[in-house]
Amino acid sequence: MQLIDGKKIAEQIKTEIAEEVQQMVANGQRPPHLAVIIVGHDGGSEAYVANKVKSCAQVGFKSTHIALEEDVTEEELLQEIARLNADPELDGLIVQLPLPKHIDEQKIIESIDYRKDVDGFHPSNVGRMTIGLPCFVSATPSGIIELLRRYEIPTKGKNCVIIGRSNIVGKPIATLMMLKGYPGDATVTVCHSHTQNLAEITRQADIIIAAIGSPEFVKEDMVKEGAVIIDVGTTRIPSTETKSGYRLCGDVDFKNVAPKCSYITPVPGGVGPMTIISLLRNTLQAARNRK
Amino acid sequence: MQLIDGKKIAEQIKTEIAEEVQQMVANGQRPPHLAVIIVGHDGGSEAYVANKVKSCAQVGFKSTHIALEEDVTEEELLQEIARLNADPELDGLIVQLPLPKHIDEQKIIESIDYRKDVDGFHPSNVGRMTIGLPCFVSATPSGIIELLRRYEIPTKGKNCVIIGRSNIVGKPIATLMMLKGYPGDATVTVCHSHTQNLAEITRQADIIIAAIGSPEFVKEDMVKEGAVIIDVGTTRIPSTETKSGYRLCGDVDFKNVAPKCSYITPVPGGVGPMTIISLLRNTLQAARNRK
Repeated sequence: MQLIDGKKIAEQIKTEIAEEVQQMVANGQRPPHLAVIIVGHDGGSEAYVANKVKSCAQVGFKSTHIALEEDVTEEELLQEIARLNADPELDGLIVQLPLPKHIDEQKIIESIDYRKDVDGFHPSNVGRMTIGLPCFVSATPSGIIELLRRYEIPTKGKNCVIIGRSNIVGKPIATLMMLKGYPGDATVTVCHSHTQNLAEITRQADIIIAAIGSPEFVKEDMVKEGAVIIDVGTTRIPSTETKSGYRLCGDVDFKNVAPKCSYITPVPGGVGPMTIISLLRNTLQAARNRK
Repeated sequence: MQLIDGKKIAEQIKTEIAEEVQQMVANGQRPPHLAVIIVGHDGGSEAYVANKVKSCAQVGFKSTHIALEEDVTEEELLQEIARLNADPELDGLIVQLPLPKHIDEQKIIESIDYRKDVDGFHPSNVGRMTIGLPCFVSATPSGIIELLRRYEIPTKGKNCVIIGRSNIVGKPIATLMMLKGYPGDATVTVCHSHTQNLAEITRQADIIIAAIGSPEFVKEDMVKEGAVIIDVGTTRIPSTETKSGYRLCGDVDFKNVAPKCSYITPVPGGVGPMTIISLLRNTLQAARNRK
């Protein structure tokens, strides 16, 4: 069994990105520039945004952190986005979710120019990914694909079973795994709450991608010998062993499943660290796309 | 075994649409209006367009048929589309494919306002469908869904195996079959040229959707007793029994497979007649969406 070390890969990619940015700047170009809009003062969101800003600095990106108050109107937020869409000095633009209830989240997502939508949530990017056109792929599926690529895990003709059909993981990773080329060309099955005989289906899988947010849902008897397991789950569960009083728990019963696997991602330290990398890679790509 | 009669259902839906249009007109609204652009003089394309125009007339839609010469420039075509996008008297706009080689097809597709893209090929519509937002679904997958609905074929928790991963059938029908609600909530597997042990997979299917364009590819031994079969294939093969010298052949070995099925679509007369219906339904929807 080999552990897929997302933390290590993430560090490695950060170094690669930093090198490319240095090269860009040496060539007289400005560095990639990401703007992050946050509305209100949710502690979790503020921590995520701080981490994004910090990661930008680490790789030499410019970042602009725009904090709007909880009571900003939808119209004001739309105006701010329109201004940033039009700013030629800006490559990527993200709005930290969730937004306050008085703001229509989908409307905000669709107001971002899809060419700056480095979160990959705009319907145009979702559609372009499905069709196989150049696009920004959202963070988690993009991170999973990159892990498979870095570990050179074969996917062509493999049975890939995805548990979960969410818009941010299940559906896009299904699309990516069935696209032509590598990592792709897999035979893809998407399972969810209505699936019957789930264990029977997962036992046929060469690759299992678990993304349901149900702690330790995937048990030993659901996995065949030698399978590759990608665990997307990150549920906080109470713990007496950590200072914070909780620990992150994946969708896979790691202790019992890991010995059967050829590869497995741990939680934390597997898919998680790759999500910020996807954002950085998309922003770098947006900068490369400049006319 | 019950035959899924696409021709009959198509006629039935035409009648329903015609009734709604009459109602719209009686209420003082203008009827739905579809514009069809055709470039050049490909015989097949001209026949398709003529059929679309005729179908519009049958249900009381207004249609505008715009024929451009083979040597029209991409820029001229884009200008024509921009003019039609801006026309408030027009609900739907399609450009008949394929286009001459000097015109970038994808660029043309993306130049159509997605709110008038009743062919459902614009990335925004593809993405919106994936996310589960209101959108125009392209003709063939939309027609399949409508057949399942009209025959009240259960889909929730069923194993649905799709053979083929094309952008116009395989991928979108996979998405639709896994969406929440009916017809959807299926456990979906997408197979293709790299799939191993295909017959083993299809034998587990409650519903098989064959869309590879390979005549009589699906054989008796690939299908379990009682399965539902949707045959999307329409390959022309030589025939001495028809005046035209060819006949349409599906992806399913109908003669030997049909006796095992609970439901099956014939070719022709199954999915085929539903595609024009999808276009009419989308155009009607576009008209309903008017502000």
